[in-house]
Amino acid sequence: MSFHVAIAGATGVVGAEFLSILAERAFPMRSLRLMASARSAGKRMEVGEQTVEVEDLAEADFTGVDVAFFSAGSAQQEHARRAAAQGALVVDNSSAFRMDPDVPLVVPEVNAAAAATHEGIIANPNCSTIILVAVLAPLEQHVPIKRVVVSTYQAVSGSGAAALTELETQAQAEQEGRPLEAEVYPTAIHANVIPFVQAFDDGDLTTEEWKMVRETQRILDRPDLAVSATCVRVPVKRAHSEAVNIEFDDEVRPDDVRAWLAAAPGVAVVDDPATVSFPTPRDASGGDDVLVGRIRRDPGRPHAIDLWLTADQLRKGAALNAVQIAESVLGVQDPATA
Amino acid sequence: MSFHVAIAGATGVVGAEFLSILAERAFPMRSLRLMASARSAGKRMEVGEQTVEVEDLAEADFTGVDVAFFSAGSAQQEHARRAAAQGALVVDNSSAFRMDPDVPLVVPEVNAAAAATHEGIIANPNCSTIILVAVLAPLEQHVPIKRVVVSTYQAVSGSGAAALTELETQAQAEQEGRPLEAEVYPTAIHANVIPFVQAFDDGDLTTEEWKMVRETQRILDRPDLAVSATCVRVPVKRAHSEAVNIEFDDEVRPDDVRAWLAAAPGVAVVDDPATVSFPTPRDASGGDDVLVGRIRRDPGRPHAIDLWLTADQLRKGAALNAVQIAESVLGVQDPATA
Repeated sequence: MSFHVAIAGATGVVGAEFLSILAERAFPMRSLRLMASARSAGKRMEVGEQTVEVEDLAEADFTGVDVAFFSAGSAQQEHARRAAAQGALVVDNSSAFRMDPDVPLVVPEVNAAAAATHEGIIANPNCSTIILVAVLAPLEQHVPIKRVVVSTYQAVSGSGAAALTELETQAQAEQEGRPLEAEVYPTAIHANVIPFVQAFDDGDLTTEEWKMVRETQRILDRPDLAVSATCVRVPVKRAHSEAVNIEFDDEVRPDDVRAWLAAAPGVAVVDDPATVSFPTPRDASGGDDVLVGRIRRDPGRPHAIDLWLTADQLRKGAALNAVQIAESVLGVQDPATA
Repeated sequence: MSFHVAIAGATGVVGAEFLSILAERAFPMRSLRLMASARSAGKRMEVGEQTVEVEDLAEADFTGVDVAFFSAGSAQQEHARRAAAQGALVVDNSSAFRMDPDVPLVVPEVNAAAAATHEGIIANPNCSTIILVAVLAPLEQHVPIKRVVVSTYQAVSGSGAAALTELETQAQAEQEGRPLEAEVYPTAIHANVIPFVQAFDDGDLTTEEWKMVRETQRILDRPDLAVSATCVRVPVKRAHSEAVNIEFDDEVRPDDVRAWLAAAPGVAVVDDPATVSFPTPRDASGGDDVLVGRIRRDPGRPHAIDLWLTADQLRKGAALNAVQIAESVLGVQDPATA
């Protein structure tokens, strides 16, 4: 069993992760097509031993494609629909379909069964949300969660390659005493933190904050769950982190949380105050697991737990999760459990 | 009316802020003595037009000193006690006396009256706590606060000059492809965030987190207040930031919060989604005010508000607050209201 695969948005930072992850996991590919905007069409990319020419996504015919990974932005949703209509299983990384009741929103470790109802398109959730629900779901299985308050520390690669360049250019400018210029972000990100991700939306929350609220509720199938999110960009290249306060319906001991998370798929506990151990985004970069530490009782609330998590948002937060969705739906064995 | 002033810990990063702030505010000084550890004794420092020789704190006689600003660490508490016994008003920046019921813990905008009961020593609170209570207190005046969940984004200068050097050395090493060495922090802070400030303590909270819990309760005179804190170091040179979720006893509208904070001393509201305005630590660096933005209703809790604050922790979080305490107790007019 092997598949004809397409990657739409192949030239972006997430596109590069798709290529790495498909190779690492030895995803059974019969053929691979790469697509991007007209600007990148014709570009040749090395993939393993072969050279693949990038096609113009707007012109691409998806007939014969078994699975198409889209990481091309919400503006390309018509092409995702077209790919699905032409018979491909589309796993879409944009926010276009995530709240569409006809499109499943899936984190395989959490709600793999939801994918079964798909009609050609499955939505990959927001990166900050994926890594949060990977930790909330195994806890919710044991004791219902009442409320979540989360503050994020998000890496600049979440904004694409231009943001990585902007961070480096600003660092260089500061070293040389030149003024810092900002284009990707509204102000300097070098040696700064920016409490604003993407755009403002209803109620003066950002779009990123609403995604964390609504997608978390949807994936956990808990439309009533109280979620507060503050999304903040930090001068980290790779891996998002989150400080999370979780209030449960009943008492939960930190040791229970450690045990439940240690047993959870896709999660690794790195938490030992005696040896000053906790996970940082540098530790998570390039890895598959959501790393969790600083697990402790909230001194102000008997039923609440504080914890810290960090994960590579280009992998588990994007390309890895999308590939895992495809593996789950296509019946490809997860190499981690093989 | 003018005073004989001493600064203990004059050679550190906070010592330098004391010198700037006393000059900026034209604090009425009759004389100035500088003290530090034996290692720095004999060093000559330029202060305005004069050159002052640094004295060995351990040997210093405080007779005749009216006010002594201590920023010399908890280990020097015996010298703070000696200075008070020799007649100086001591404003101590360390954590040594903060929970001592005989020593007032003061943020002048919040609880100036508490200073009246001093017996020679007044404690300056923890930096992250000062900037938090400056924002909580004006809200608590209108509607009682039930619970606070705070996540910090703390600048490296909070760990002293060596941490600033470590950040720059690591950035340089990464650029040159050399391994990053960490001494001040347990792991690299360049292009990273570290969910650990200072040391581990009871219940697997850090000492910094406990300070935020207990000092907030003490300054607000609310020993029952539920506070959860996660303290995180970020690669920012100067100014701490905090994402704060505040649950009130009753409904509070974001516009009320904006109005109450706009009227509060030492606080400035920078909050306009229409123009994508919010404060960052770069904006707060070198300034006196606690800048507040991202004020909005928590979508999960009708009585809760989310907001973001940032302030120069070496100024309002340390030296400025200490000088304001002295001004308040000695009856020196605050230049901001003069």
